[in-house]
Amino acid sequence: MKTGASSLVQTALNAGVEICFANAGTTEMPIVVTLDRVPGMRVVLGLFEGVCTGAADGWARMTGRPAATLLHLGPGLANGIANLHNARRARTPVVNWVGDHATRHLAFDAPLTSDIAALTGSVGWTRTVKSAGEMAEASLAAIEAAIGPPGRVASLIIPADCQWEPGPEPLSVTPTPKLRETRSPAIQEAARLLREGRGSLLLGGTALTETGLRAAARVAAATACGVWIETFPSRQECGRHVPLFPALPYFPEQATEALANVASLVLAGARDPVAFFAYPDQPSRLLPDGAALHTLASPEEGIDAALALEALAHELDAPAIVMPPRTIATFQPSGLPLTPDTLCRALAASTPENAIVVNEAATTGLTWNAVHSSNAAPHTMLFITGGAIGQGLPNALGAALACPDRRVIAFQADGSGLYTLQALWSMARENADVTVVVCANRRYRILQVELQRSGIAEPGPKAQALTDLTRPVIDWVSLAKGFGMPGCSVQTEEEFAGALLRAFKERGPSLIEAVIA
Amino acid sequence: MKTGASSLVQTALNAGVEICFANAGTTEMPIVVTLDRVPGMRVVLGLFEGVCTGAADGWARMTGRPAATLLHLGPGLANGIANLHNARRARTPVVNWVGDHATRHLAFDAPLTSDIAALTGSVGWTRTVKSAGEMAEASLAAIEAAIGPPGRVASLIIPADCQWEPGPEPLSVTPTPKLRETRSPAIQEAARLLREGRGSLLLGGTALTETGLRAAARVAAATACGVWIETFPSRQECGRHVPLFPALPYFPEQATEALANVASLVLAGARDPVAFFAYPDQPSRLLPDGAALHTLASPEEGIDAALALEALAHELDAPAIVMPPRTIATFQPSGLPLTPDTLCRALAASTPENAIVVNEAATTGLTWNAVHSSNAAPHTMLFITGGAIGQGLPNALGAALACPDRRVIAFQADGSGLYTLQALWSMARENADVTVVVCANRRYRILQVELQRSGIAEPGPKAQALTDLTRPVIDWVSLAKGFGMPGCSVQTEEEFAGALLRAFKERGPSLIEAVIA
Repeated sequence: MKTGASSLVQTALNAGVEICFANAGTTEMPIVVTLDRVPGMRVVLGLFEGVCTGAADGWARMTGRPAATLLHLGPGLANGIANLHNARRARTPVVNWVGDHATRHLAFDAPLTSDIAALTGSVGWTRTVKSAGEMAEASLAAIEAAIGPPGRVASLIIPADCQWEPGPEPLSVTPTPKLRETRSPAIQEAARLLREGRGSLLLGGTALTETGLRAAARVAAATACGVWIETFPSRQECGRHVPLFPALPYFPEQATEALANVASLVLAGARDPVAFFAYPDQPSRLLPDGAALHTLASPEEGIDAALALEALAHELDAPAIVMPPRTIATFQPSGLPLTPDTLCRALAASTPENAIVVNEAATTGLTWNAVHSSNAAPHTMLFITGGAIGQGLPNALGAALACPDRRVIAFQADGSGLYTLQALWSMARENADVTVVVCANRRYRILQVELQRSGIAEPGPKAQALTDLTRPVIDWVSLAKGFGMPGCSVQTEEEFAGALLRAFKERGPSLIEAVIA
Repeated sequence: MKTGASSLVQTALNAGVEICFANAGTTEMPIVVTLDRVPGMRVVLGLFEGVCTGAADGWARMTGRPAATLLHLGPGLANGIANLHNARRARTPVVNWVGDHATRHLAFDAPLTSDIAALTGSVGWTRTVKSAGEMAEASLAAIEAAIGPPGRVASLIIPADCQWEPGPEPLSVTPTPKLRETRSPAIQEAARLLREGRGSLLLGGTALTETGLRAAARVAAATACGVWIETFPSRQECGRHVPLFPALPYFPEQATEALANVASLVLAGARDPVAFFAYPDQPSRLLPDGAALHTLASPEEGIDAALALEALAHELDAPAIVMPPRTIATFQPSGLPLTPDTLCRALAASTPENAIVVNEAATTGLTWNAVHSSNAAPHTMLFITGGAIGQGLPNALGAALACPDRRVIAFQADGSGLYTLQALWSMARENADVTVVVCANRRYRILQVELQRSGIAEPGPKAQALTDLTRPVIDWVSLAKGFGMPGCSVQTEEEFAGALLRAFKERGPSLIEAVIA
């Protein structure tokens, strides 16, 4: 029988949605049943909703196509909001199917009733289905909203009766994002500004593909402009095969210093740079007053930044670049305890070709981006974009399922990893090729840095307690074992290098707890 | 120096808020620093925000006074919403301090910016602080909003500059909830209805204290009325010392059958009963059409249901009750594998006097409430009220810190426990006297029941995958070890009974994984 649920699912399949990260409850049972009756949708269980939304984000970052999530009313959706926030900032297409009580039941304010639309509205596009008859059309509308451009989080709130009642014929439409080309005046203005001197490019979005980075290098060669990469990119090609540009620093005093002499900033897929946090004595906006700001390619307008940079290079008659040979990273491990630097060096030396590095390694991760990733073999990096920690492990799960022929490295801070550690179980269940590297400094290091920056040289016992992850020490190998994943703990360079070698040789997930002195 | 942060914290201390469950970030650093400078506030770190909000809920259920949470902007608050939803349904007072960007920074839409008020508004009272000058008054306003009556979730959104800038003198007010007495006409009408015959009482809120339950028994003795307990109470006195009344069944077909012959229902602290979920062939409202509904005591109006029941007993000239002696639960464990029934029987036989049983044991927990808890030693039960799973472990943490002289039993379903398992670490850090009993049936049993109820005798592979927690089996002893908590896994009645004995003899937390055949 055709139900609203089957109209939803079949329409989504026809539109190219092929995987559903689910944590369903009673109000989603008609969709659960349908997933068996309508063939073709891969279904992955997350033990916590933040795993589902973060995995959908990781999937879409790697494929460019949205995954679906299946979530249980307001509280289930709420558990997934933090990673939807990251997806929103990354402009990742995500389609949420959020079950709700049957329409007639809502007036009775049963215990699980809440204002779901207020929650979903905070992260993107929202529509509440009113009847089973609109389930095909609503399914497609959500997917179209998600793929944009720009990509966004699109949530369908689906009352249970709209799932179980007879539904319409599914639609057979495969929407594609309607990308636009940069307009000539925008290219010409960018060329003019960069030729004037003291200009800089700020790269984000698709400017961080190999095509985009190479075009940016040509522009830089032709104009002697500076080139920066946005601090929190969604996805970036990294390694020895692409031109090396610095990331705009995280702390505003460093970022404003970096931009101090910039007369004009040309945005290619990035936004006008602002401080991640405000501080009493620091500006919010990082560009100097009076500097010109020019948008070459805005993802919000559906303009491909890589193509725009190629057009700009053409406008500038920039010659093709020849990538100078860069030193191949090597690392001779010693028996010394790991530091953030040697950890990154060991990882850079052993990163498999074509790996995906999901970087939520916080302080260690900023070091990786700034210094080490460019010395590694060619790889793709996914980064935490919205600042909502707990993205890394779910993202790695989704990326691994999207790219089964690529090794995923979940490069993970220990504090952040604990928000969504349930992702380890789904990695084990799906036998995903994820190597989890936990940078175990056993503290919220970034917060300790912030305390120092605010003049607190010696934090009191409560501030210490709130930034310290010992008492008791968290044992990641046991956590992994609890979720069915093999793991080991290493303390020295040699142990870590050996553990990486072993992990990359075998299929399936494993965890390395890298204790940092 | 007096800052907005110190005005906030000192005012809260003066108002009786003595503990803060925190997971702070950069935007909350001025409050973190203040917690060391203003003496008196206990600070407990949660590794995930749902731990903080659920612990605050558990604390307040046991003390009647709100705890504070300290959360990091929209995504941090979002991670705590599921348990705030439960607190909302339980009418628990909770005060959330949610940091936000400095006011001047908000316009720049930095990565962590989001519509926090949309999120907090979905669970209760919300106020966004506009300047440091209002921090004392806003702190008190949130506490007053939280304690009500009715108790509610109250959220202050606090921009970072309102924390770090100079603040006003703290206020010295200790607000108390302004409870009201039942009005005489309401008592007389209740008496009239129950005397007419085929009347029933439905108990909730404070009707489930020892006082309330005894008064209800007197009313029942005087009128031969039925007495039901609401299906999802917030807190209930249980055990051999209190009269035994059945809980209204969970499934609507059973609940409507239970109420089928009721001519009038008198609500004492409970709401007009509705089905937890809607089903195609079941009503939403459970009371028969035409039955009279009368509210004796509404928590929304600040009326104490226990006192109202005593007044009703007085109105009815009901004699004092003498509790008939009830069989003391004993259990002779065998070497047989545990079932839900024998697990509950073993627990009832060994529950320490004056324990707190935090019941999120799902299907096994409904069995416990219906049959077994009344055979146990006197204890207090906290139940999942809003249906948002992941309440149990955080609730148990908060209850244990609120009542350090009482043993807390976290009676926990395995599926639900995985949503907020990070609470185990805070239990270990605080050395909380919590015995975690994980009912490990290794499935979302309630969903498998729902599949059967909807006519799916043989779920397909995807429906099975979405309700099954094996492949791989989750090893709770390793998870506990990972968070620094000792644990053991038991399979037989004898092993379980022995493990309970050992756990109750020692101080501090431990976990028992009780595998159910």
